[in-house]
Amino acid sequence: MKGEIIAVGTELLLGNIVNTNAQYLSQKMADLGIDVFYHVAVGDNMQRLVDTVRTSLNRSDIIITCGGLGPTTDDITKEGVSEALGVKLLPDKASIEKIKEIFKAYERPMTDNNIKQGYIPEGAIVLENNNGTAPGILVEKDDKIAILLPGPPNELYPMFEEKVLPYLKAKVHSTIRSRMLRVVGIGESAAEDMLKEIISSQTNPTIAPYAKDGEVHLRITAKTDNPEEADRLIVQMEQKVRSILGENIYGYDEESLEEVVLRLLQERKMTLSLAESCTGGLIANRLTDIPGASASLMCGIISYSNESKTNILGVKEETIRNYGAVSSQTAEEMAIGAKRVGNTDIGISVTGIAGPDGGSVEKPVGLCYIGISIGDKVKVHRLRFNGNRKRLKWNFSNRALDYLRRELLLL
Amino acid sequence: MKGEIIAVGTELLLGNIVNTNAQYLSQKMADLGIDVFYHVAVGDNMQRLVDTVRTSLNRSDIIITCGGLGPTTDDITKEGVSEALGVKLLPDKASIEKIKEIFKAYERPMTDNNIKQGYIPEGAIVLENNNGTAPGILVEKDDKIAILLPGPPNELYPMFEEKVLPYLKAKVHSTIRSRMLRVVGIGESAAEDMLKEIISSQTNPTIAPYAKDGEVHLRITAKTDNPEEADRLIVQMEQKVRSILGENIYGYDEESLEEVVLRLLQERKMTLSLAESCTGGLIANRLTDIPGASASLMCGIISYSNESKTNILGVKEETIRNYGAVSSQTAEEMAIGAKRVGNTDIGISVTGIAGPDGGSVEKPVGLCYIGISIGDKVKVHRLRFNGNRKRLKWNFSNRALDYLRRELLLL
Repeated sequence: MKGEIIAVGTELLLGNIVNTNAQYLSQKMADLGIDVFYHVAVGDNMQRLVDTVRTSLNRSDIIITCGGLGPTTDDITKEGVSEALGVKLLPDKASIEKIKEIFKAYERPMTDNNIKQGYIPEGAIVLENNNGTAPGILVEKDDKIAILLPGPPNELYPMFEEKVLPYLKAKVHSTIRSRMLRVVGIGESAAEDMLKEIISSQTNPTIAPYAKDGEVHLRITAKTDNPEEADRLIVQMEQKVRSILGENIYGYDEESLEEVVLRLLQERKMTLSLAESCTGGLIANRLTDIPGASASLMCGIISYSNESKTNILGVKEETIRNYGAVSSQTAEEMAIGAKRVGNTDIGISVTGIAGPDGGSVEKPVGLCYIGISIGDKVKVHRLRFNGNRKRLKWNFSNRALDYLRRELLLL
Repeated sequence: MKGEIIAVGTELLLGNIVNTNAQYLSQKMADLGIDVFYHVAVGDNMQRLVDTVRTSLNRSDIIITCGGLGPTTDDITKEGVSEALGVKLLPDKASIEKIKEIFKAYERPMTDNNIKQGYIPEGAIVLENNNGTAPGILVEKDDKIAILLPGPPNELYPMFEEKVLPYLKAKVHSTIRSRMLRVVGIGESAAEDMLKEIISSQTNPTIAPYAKDGEVHLRITAKTDNPEEADRLIVQMEQKVRSILGENIYGYDEESLEEVVLRLLQERKMTLSLAESCTGGLIANRLTDIPGASASLMCGIISYSNESKTNILGVKEETIRNYGAVSSQTAEEMAIGAKRVGNTDIGISVTGIAGPDGGSVEKPVGLCYIGISIGDKVKVHRLRFNGNRKRLKWNFSNRALDYLRRELLLL
């Protein structure tokens, strides 16, 4: 079964709002096993709306529109869809009564435009709106289904869950389930190269890699008649991928790297201090975005000046003089210093050049050292990335969290 | 001139990501005076992509695609658009060399897929990508313009601003100029109320307030035949607004609060240290996102544990015992401690409750104290916000930067 989502509203085309309804409805359709091949957004213009709906009805079995059901003259979705479907708009007594009641209850004056909301396409089912005045519409004609939903998410979500979901569940037979594997430490093309054979022989489940914020996310999607079978297929595929990518996979679905690191720290009852130079507080900020971070993260030192590296973290002046602030030696002493100052089990340090200035041939922009001090051991990793300042900070922070994750897995 | 935005990527149709690029590009097109009549999202499927691009080229003068320019076999935008336009894809020596160089410089293995990124449609202009490996493409054919941009916003935004905007500006004729005034410290409805008369009598230029990240952004837009007249109208309107909002206006256009604060510090040759508790490094992270921050920001202490507040910042144990870690007294000692530890002119502190746990009736989630120590003076501000953890961290950090800004204006 093929579905399509049509958002109606000039405010989308002006960039005033972002089309979050398309995302919400797509997730719901995917869960139902309905393939969504297109999203379209069109303005409050009758001719373009009718053209769009006609095209969509030609290529899809189900169209879902959102927006344009309100009382103003701009709201033309019902009219446009009816024309494209070739059905008449007729007054619906029950809907008109309900609208009248709402206005009476809220002591608001009612206009002719409000009455317009009580007209529905011939043969349609009215989807009651418990969170606004515009009812939704569901109409079937010639093996096609058109579902018209209001635009505001607080009206659309409950109407979809309560009215549309049960209807669609009865219509569809197959199930789509998916799982995202989150990979860090290797690039997108390297990951694809390692998974080449699996990807080229994929049928069901499918596997699709995409790059996001310095990570690779692999989506495994299975389509079958029943959820248990879909889950079994996904687990099988995950095992195959895991046998190749191993610990490069750090998490599932929406789980972030900082969440995984904090979970591992909590499981091991270990505490952490940070010494950040070039990342400038980004690692601390990412960790403290997670509720409960205070159980593991004790403190962070953003030692931007050399003076703060020596005064607060106890990096030796001669180390900076002999090797530079961006060096393996400084990273090592920073990590040890962070652990000591914070009185924690682990100290992590990052020192590098985020640019755009400050690079040299020997130490270019994008160079970074990450130190990890655990117990009486210290490791330092050397890295190079490209990108602008924010990108570099992000990639440095991601690798620091990843190195910590890998160390924690060994404990 | 009519434009259209085509997002390419199955992850959109599965609802994994929301199409924020369409919003960004729509705003930019509206600023240019280019009408956007449609947004389309299509998956990584060649036939549907080619069909979509053909339809769009039929009804629009300019199409902008985003996504699908990466190195994997899923990335088919260049191939699809070339087929729809009827142009060949040819290897571009310069692009291929550049990709090879990147991989060499960053000591990464290169695959055949990476070379694919160096092929471009015949006659196209290559838009250099300074934030990733996939170059953008601009191709004109038969009075139509196709612009292919990478999907990740951190690559798309700068490429659009630096490469596409100047090109499109030269293509469009009527002049639309706009200026954004950035306001902090008062809410959207308060700002709108203060500007009520101006807003209700607006014609040209228009003025529109938007709430964004705890700030209010006022966009003044003038539309005329020549740039000088437009600029004159904007300056006039700005003076009117400024006479009402005064120092609540902190900056223009893309200028961020952290940029303004760093500029003021540099102008006054003053240095800064931070003591962050509930903001967890966010203030430091925001400041260090700005190139050259190291000239003013010497260090930050993220004193998440009470121990780190006393050990590193020298907050008295009895202060925390008697008044609590979230108190005016602790904020004061933290600010003084930051200034002393960092050996700087100014110390800023933030201590509060970001939630979701840790609140009480007396000290609810959303309560925050901000301390500012300059010379031998200390001020503490008490604040309350509502929202989730990330939202609260953001609002706390914004107010801390704003209080600092207002202090700096007095010096």
